[in-house]
Amino acid sequence: MPAKLLLSDALARIAADVDSMFDAMLPVPDDARARLIEAMRYAAIGGGKRLRPLLLTATAELYGVDFSTALRAGVAIEAIHVYSLIHDDLPCMDDDDMRHGKPTVHRAFDEATAVLAGDALHAFAFEIIADPDLFPDPFTRAELVLALGRAAGMNGMAGGQMMDIVAEDESFDLRTVTRLQQLKTGALLGAAVEMGAILGRLPPEGRTLLRGYARDIGLAFQITDDLLDHEGDEAAAGKALRKDQAAGKQTFVSLFGPERARQQAQMLVDQAIAHLAQHGQEADLLRALARYVVERDH
Amino acid sequence: MPAKLLLSDALARIAADVDSMFDAMLPVPDDARARLIEAMRYAAIGGGKRLRPLLLTATAELYGVDFSTALRAGVAIEAIHVYSLIHDDLPCMDDDDMRHGKPTVHRAFDEATAVLAGDALHAFAFEIIADPDLFPDPFTRAELVLALGRAAGMNGMAGGQMMDIVAEDESFDLRTVTRLQQLKTGALLGAAVEMGAILGRLPPEGRTLLRGYARDIGLAFQITDDLLDHEGDEAAAGKALRKDQAAGKQTFVSLFGPERARQQAQMLVDQAIAHLAQHGQEADLLRALARYVVERDH
Repeated sequence: MPAKLLLSDALARIAADVDSMFDAMLPVPDDARARLIEAMRYAAIGGGKRLRPLLLTATAELYGVDFSTALRAGVAIEAIHVYSLIHDDLPCMDDDDMRHGKPTVHRAFDEATAVLAGDALHAFAFEIIADPDLFPDPFTRAELVLALGRAAGMNGMAGGQMMDIVAEDESFDLRTVTRLQQLKTGALLGAAVEMGAILGRLPPEGRTLLRGYARDIGLAFQITDDLLDHEGDEAAAGKALRKDQAAGKQTFVSLFGPERARQQAQMLVDQAIAHLAQHGQEADLLRALARYVVERDH
Repeated sequence: MPAKLLLSDALARIAADVDSMFDAMLPVPDDARARLIEAMRYAAIGGGKRLRPLLLTATAELYGVDFSTALRAGVAIEAIHVYSLIHDDLPCMDDDDMRHGKPTVHRAFDEATAVLAGDALHAFAFEIIADPDLFPDPFTRAELVLALGRAAGMNGMAGGQMMDIVAEDESFDLRTVTRLQQLKTGALLGAAVEMGAILGRLPPEGRTLLRGYARDIGLAFQITDDLLDHEGDEAAAGKALRKDQAAGKQTFVSLFGPERARQQAQMLVDQAIAHLAQHGQEADLLRALARYVVERDH
């Protein structure tokens, strides 16, 4: 199958699968918790590119992992991503009104519900991957939890978000912006690949090339985000743009200029694909994903 | 050792041990994440009764679990408790200025840092219990994660907090208030006992009596909280009191009246202790803890 078709099929399929799994796993209870679960569903279902679940399932596929098993782990990592967006959008954080073309959770519900819905999705992710009915092997469960916990915590996403707040007051150099983005978005993208490898029972010492792939597409993803933020269309993005610029934050675009930023992102994608050289066409989806990361328009 | 001395020794010891373990596990990094880790330390070190770690270690001790292993799991559950307090205190939630006799995290730092410090402590808890260097047995790690994730999530603490918000607008009956409290505080107290039993390799079918013990002291704890909120001293509590009353929320005291609430709490403590009848003096600390739950003055 041509690479573009392969990818668009895979994106459409993972979006539908993630939606139906969230739908099945988050039934609205007939009690006063209903509002919480409705807010979780509102944020989790029907939006987003589902890049992390796709990265996870595509990596797992390299090692012959059953798709439905990989999908469950993909839903767990997506739950972490969704929770981080809910909290990121709060008035005390980025104060965003729109996300994926609809009002943010604190706008559609209220701030307290948004805080709790984020917290509950955070715990939900760990409930999924620690469930022996979903992942029978205890060693796999424990490894998945560790990979996800580290990627989400102070040495991963939460640490990167703190640096991002500090970036409004301090002028970061390229090294610090790179570190910030490796934590803020790179850690969870890396965890997606790592979790795919864990499901594939690849030993840690065999994951070096895959980690390189994840690190490269993580940075390429962020540089492209900065470019889209700089030049993109708010309607296509479904959210407000050019807020970093207004806040005086250093980004890859402000540090490199748009032209060099674009070259840098393309170089990273080539490098990411080179990390997959030992694989045959079974890695074509991961290669197409790497290209998509810089070619997407939102 | 007389029960009171046993308990006061145990409370002092666990407080010191939990503090020093948080101190060791949360070093402040020399980068822009420093503010995040400082906020986590501010909330986690030097406050609170450490009831959950004590319940966990006292249960684990029944089955001869090494204290330092149990303590690590205790620090994980305390991290979840502390994160929930940080988020609970936020302006959009309970809007509290004081906690444990000092300004709340969003007061001492700012709201964004408080949201992130709570999120990072949440992930930190799972990083601890999924760490193979701390808990070598993968089955134990996976069981600990599942117990903690379920207790923290939408069917546990986060679900109870949502009900608590809804309680401001709806007049709950005794059955609903009981369910609310079983989720909001009972689930995590139950997880403390459950995690102690998991470390002790007690099979799930052997945990029924311990679960009864946890359920009873959980409710007794909450009834006593409501009594202290109704009659207590703000200085001793280190936080604002009588907010439920002002918000028109139903509590065990408003539903029972103070006299019957006190009797009910005492009855629950007797029942909790009866669940320990098969144990000898190795359960004296759990018995003393049950009594302390209703006798404490803050």
